[in-house]
Amino acid sequence: MSNTKALPLLDPAPGEAAAPCCPPLTERPFTADEAETAARMFKALGDPVRLRLFSAVASHEGGEACVCDISDVGVSQPTVSHHLKKLKEAGLLTSERRGTWVYYRVEPSVLAAMGRLLTRAVPTS
Amino acid sequence: MSNTKALPLLDPAPGEAAAPCCPPLTERPFTADEAETAARMFKALGDPVRLRLFSAVASHEGGEACVCDISDVGVSQPTVSHHLKKLKEAGLLTSERRGTWVYYRVEPSVLAAMGRLLTRAVPTS
Repeated sequence: MSNTKALPLLDPAPGEAAAPCCPPLTERPFTADEAETAARMFKALGDPVRLRLFSAVASHEGGEACVCDISDVGVSQPTVSHHLKKLKEAGLLTSERRGTWVYYRVEPSVLAAMGRLLTRAVPTS
Repeated sequence: MSNTKALPLLDPAPGEAAAPCCPPLTERPFTADEAETAARMFKALGDPVRLRLFSAVASHEGGEACVCDISDVGVSQPTVSHHLKKLKEAGLLTSERRGTWVYYRVEPSVLAAMGRLLTRAVPTS
């Protein structure tokens, strides 16, 4: 698998909410480019182990977790690390090394942008 | 691929909003069962052509479309039908035959339930 391209929606200007890659699904048919971008994101969540890990990070105190915090999903720690890397490559997690451990974080703006894809347009200002 | 099991969130009591299969991703770590259910849904949207077709149906007038309405995504009509079937098997679309054509529909409650997975809990009453 080689879906390593970062998602545009994950790179907002500082202090600005992330711009979703795409309009809400109900607004108009996606273009091919929009579909490529959003499908990469959905695909990353389309694996049960990855989804459990993602929810473990997303629900962890402070919205971040270290591999040491979330290894109770019944797979080996190398497998956990592999899936976290995939989530990172898909742009759903960011990571930061602190000493021995790598900490993973879900940006709330990313979840919000994904949620907007699935819900009707709401005025943003 | 054999992900043909219907999603519980798509079978609400009549007149009732669909119950999401799972809590918001930020609320607590998903259980294995919750992750299986939700991953099936995300996986179905994790293909660019399927996602374009899904948005074409979701954004079509009245929230429903026939294969004849949405065949302009650059793949053959049998391929369109194949992907629509996959979306239906994943529980994201319902369908109804009327004369020659099969009409596909996205239930707004399904999109709402998926959106709730990705956003923080909001009081529902």
